[in-house]
Amino acid sequence: MLTFEVLTTDAPSATSSGSHARRGRLTLNHGVVQTPIFMPVGTYGTVKGVMPRSLEEMGAQIILGNTFHLWMRPSLDVMQSFGGLHGFERWNKPILTDSGGFQVWSLGAMRKITEEGVHFASPVNGDKLFMSPEVSMQIQTVLNSDIVMQLDECTPYETNGHLTTEAEARHSMAMSLRWAKRSQDEFSRLENPNALFGIVQGGMFEHLRQESLDALVAMNFPGYAVGGVSVGEPKEEMRRIMAHSPHRLPAHKPRYLMGVGTPEDLVEGVTQGVDMFDCVMPTRNARNGTLFTRFGDLKIRNARHKSDHGPLDPTCTCYTCQGHMQADGTVSGGFSRAYLHHLDRCGEMLGPMLTTIHNLHYYLNLMREVREALEAGQFGAFRQQFAADRARGV
Amino acid sequence: MLTFEVLTTDAPSATSSGSHARRGRLTLNHGVVQTPIFMPVGTYGTVKGVMPRSLEEMGAQIILGNTFHLWMRPSLDVMQSFGGLHGFERWNKPILTDSGGFQVWSLGAMRKITEEGVHFASPVNGDKLFMSPEVSMQIQTVLNSDIVMQLDECTPYETNGHLTTEAEARHSMAMSLRWAKRSQDEFSRLENPNALFGIVQGGMFEHLRQESLDALVAMNFPGYAVGGVSVGEPKEEMRRIMAHSPHRLPAHKPRYLMGVGTPEDLVEGVTQGVDMFDCVMPTRNARNGTLFTRFGDLKIRNARHKSDHGPLDPTCTCYTCQGHMQADGTVSGGFSRAYLHHLDRCGEMLGPMLTTIHNLHYYLNLMREVREALEAGQFGAFRQQFAADRARGV
Repeated sequence: MLTFEVLTTDAPSATSSGSHARRGRLTLNHGVVQTPIFMPVGTYGTVKGVMPRSLEEMGAQIILGNTFHLWMRPSLDVMQSFGGLHGFERWNKPILTDSGGFQVWSLGAMRKITEEGVHFASPVNGDKLFMSPEVSMQIQTVLNSDIVMQLDECTPYETNGHLTTEAEARHSMAMSLRWAKRSQDEFSRLENPNALFGIVQGGMFEHLRQESLDALVAMNFPGYAVGGVSVGEPKEEMRRIMAHSPHRLPAHKPRYLMGVGTPEDLVEGVTQGVDMFDCVMPTRNARNGTLFTRFGDLKIRNARHKSDHGPLDPTCTCYTCQGHMQADGTVSGGFSRAYLHHLDRCGEMLGPMLTTIHNLHYYLNLMREVREALEAGQFGAFRQQFAADRARGV
Repeated sequence: MLTFEVLTTDAPSATSSGSHARRGRLTLNHGVVQTPIFMPVGTYGTVKGVMPRSLEEMGAQIILGNTFHLWMRPSLDVMQSFGGLHGFERWNKPILTDSGGFQVWSLGAMRKITEEGVHFASPVNGDKLFMSPEVSMQIQTVLNSDIVMQLDECTPYETNGHLTTEAEARHSMAMSLRWAKRSQDEFSRLENPNALFGIVQGGMFEHLRQESLDALVAMNFPGYAVGGVSVGEPKEEMRRIMAHSPHRLPAHKPRYLMGVGTPEDLVEGVTQGVDMFDCVMPTRNARNGTLFTRFGDLKIRNARHKSDHGPLDPTCTCYTCQGHMQADGTVSGGFSRAYLHHLDRCGEMLGPMLTTIHNLHYYLNLMREVREALEAGQFGAFRQQFAADRARGV
């Protein structure tokens, strides 16, 4: 089940020169998602370092799970016994799962890709395993994710210094198309009640991307992703593909840009017509002490924060920056940079816990501001202010 | 400032054979503490792995800070700029700080103890530092903790296989008494507005403990601790000292048993007249996957939990076991053993976050049940039920 409505588009106006951006509403089996949206990544059935209640408080509407990881651990029989990932990880809102293709591909020398699928050795216990479009659909059906991704081959940007050629990218894209069809057939056969997305590939070649896109659109998926970006290519290359594919996808269906990116990438993605994003950047950077704020990024490890009583971002309303009002009327939270610097220096768990809350809140709030700007017909003005604020520095 | 009222004692009745246990109310500069109480340990200005809001939700009334650690990091000038530990770590309820003596003593070869104080090299940067009763009082005054501990020498149970002799224990205890006097004088001179506790020492020798206790009582501290237990001695030795000292301390003043212990030790401590406990066990064990429940302890790493849909403890009301009702009426939390087992296996941060909440909640709830039993005149019955439940097994 999936319905998608475009509520507003970024038409030219006094406060916007117009763009491909749109404000939408996506309805899935486990709830409604307001788009554009950022989806926190919960690889092993947990968004690293965050309690589900914190995710709900910061307005997460949909999170990711990684099919490959969850297949390895806790295994499918455990997942089956819980009726899927929602019950297991205690998250009642929508979930999107990837196909497992990217992780299998990342195994490098430990895997062999053929037309049939991918043979590989389990990184957990060395067992010989096989992943195919059919297997991916079977696993994702057990996970019961609201959005299922087709199995695709992620075309690399380069391999050991060799840039992927047009012929290689075409070969890979064509196989992903055949896998799209097999994914669709198996998804159907399994009577999976959720929604399957096709994934546009084609490397850094616009004409291949167009071929992939046309073929997938003919297959009539309920939603589409743009894959194979943010795989090590220079930023200009990524932006070139972002400018090509999203807005050429069907206007009445949701568009998902996989694995992207920085706050600037997200705003650019929205401008190019993307509705959905996921990225490990906010959570991973939080654990490394790199924090996003309205006025640019900061490294909490930097000695200049040692005695700073101010919050990470004075405009941020997260638990870490502003704190929450409690039942007894007192405020809990609202921590200083000095305290966060101290936690980092001491290697205290509370450090990544608080910075993860902040970074995820930043991403989710950025998307909330994007939605509000689109609703108000002010997306152009928003983009200018966003760029100016981010350039100001913290 | 400190006031203490004994509200009820465990007099012999139909449901109790009577004991030294008492139910009290301790008023400090930052609030009221209902005793008997367990105090979570927040060494570096954070109870490891827990947000302050979670501590408040689980009913923590007072937490610890470690003077030595906080002196090293973030340093006293940072602490001073925040007006003490409360503002720095954003905890508005009472705080107790230790003297730093135990940590300095634990440095082993890196320190030299004399009558004057302890010379040692900073474990953080190698700086030559000096700790004395006066220095400890000065640091704790900057920390502005509600309860300040005198500097003492922690008499070891054994040193490289050599059991501490009566002469050694006497020598050490006598120095701790002189340091008690110096602590008291300096605390006074600094006009510290909080409360200073004296610490009973004397090793495993009751007559030395009695001497220490008598001398400290003569010095009229507002509260007393029993130190030098849980330092590697056999359980019977610890129980022997627990049976000696607490109930001999002044009845109208709070009694604190330092660094103890298991749930059984806490109930025994209350029976012997103790009002306050602290221990790293609930937090440290949580991080190692050893969890306390009403029906005994369990190791979440054990394969038998792999597919178990049940909570750690069906009688537990913590976020991990039962979950919390949210503003929108849905429940967040309430995780299965299978999920916690999976998080542990994957090394996910959420594992220790959830198990720490559970273990601390268990300790705090145990003390709440103790207080309720004392109020109801049922402490004897409570002890029997507690022992039977814990022996049942999970």
